Amino acid sequence: MPFELAPSIDLLRRTPAVLTALLEGVDAAWFRGREGPDSFSPFDVVGHLIDGEETDWIPRARIILARGPQPRFEPYDRFRHRSRNADRTLESLLAEFARLREDNLELLRSWRLGPDQLELPGQHPSLGPVTLRQLLAAWVVHDLGHLAQVARVMAKQYREEVGPWVPYLPVLTDHEVPRS
Amino acid sequence: MPFELAPSIDLLRRTPAVLTALLEGVDAAWFRGREGPDSFSPFDVVGHLIDGEETDWIPRARIILARGPQPRFEPYDRFRHRSRNADRTLESLLAEFARLREDNLELLRSWRLGPDQLELPGQHPSLGPVTLRQLLAAWVVHDLGHLAQVARVMAKQYREEVGPWVPYLPVLTDHEVPRS
Repeated sequence: MPFELAPSIDLLRRTPAVLTALLEGVDAAWFRGREGPDSFSPFDVVGHLIDGEETDWIPRARIILARGPQPRFEPYDRFRHRSRNADRTLESLLAEFARLREDNLELLRSWRLGPDQLELPGQHPSLGPVTLRQLLAAWVVHDLGHLAQVARVMAKQYREEVGPWVPYLPVLTDHEVPRS
Repeated sequence: MPFELAPSIDLLRRTPAVLTALLEGVDAAWFRGREGPDSFSPFDVVGHLIDGEETDWIPRARIILARGPQPRFEPYDRFRHRSRNADRTLESLLAEFARLREDNLELLRSWRLGPDQLELPGQHPSLGPVTLRQLLAAWVVHDLGHLAQVARVMAKQYREEVGPWVPYLPVLTDHEVPRS
């Protein structure tokens, strides 16, 4: 499916509402659970998505659009949220994420990007040359990947409770070795 | 995490709202996409969840609670939705699922199940002996597994669009051989 800006923005717009519908007001046992030692709980995912709003997607798009001679992105800290959000509630993080996302999408719309701009280059610190189009497609996929992760990690909290149903519930055996 | 009825009902209550936030009004290219030939699109998942409301979870709980000598479940048709929903819109299915789920949870609450009832036995046609508690835990996990699937299948529609980002987006390489 080829990348298009308007439906991509439409999907990005949905993520805070999806996470709020799934997580707001749930028991901490559900949103603090993990699937392995260095992996994210649903709480961590919301913090990680906030980090993305503040330090990843739009800052990198700005670097590309500045058209400087070295459009090199800053490396991204996957664990910035851990210290940042140590004393925060899930509800306050959900509200902050919704606000940041709304502002960022308003900015993205205001740029009125055309096909030529979408092909502008950036330099990823470890992946090498990328385009603005690939950056924006990766933003959408990154959201959806973390939504899938939240649902999967929540499902695994009942791993021992379903008895003989395990082979019919493949989500319970996805990512046996956590990889995100 | 041990099964508890109230938080399980709370999660089951959320699923229609989560799916509506993610899917209502999106382009058909997003909700008709699959990750492999015999696997479910997001549209199929909503139909499959409706089948679950009509033929799986509550009907099976009723069989258990009837305490007959042979509490054997009917086999479940994973592809019932295909012919049933051939002419339906996604929006009408989302609304139908929300209504069926609400009614089923109202019924479930009305049973005021206690610990003894949760241990009552049923007979799964292929998995063998199960308890009502395991059935209800499996219902929750089944929902969350299909939410994860919807997000994953949507993410994969942009597989070719993210360029060099693939190794940083593990959702794109989950279920390379579809298994649900």
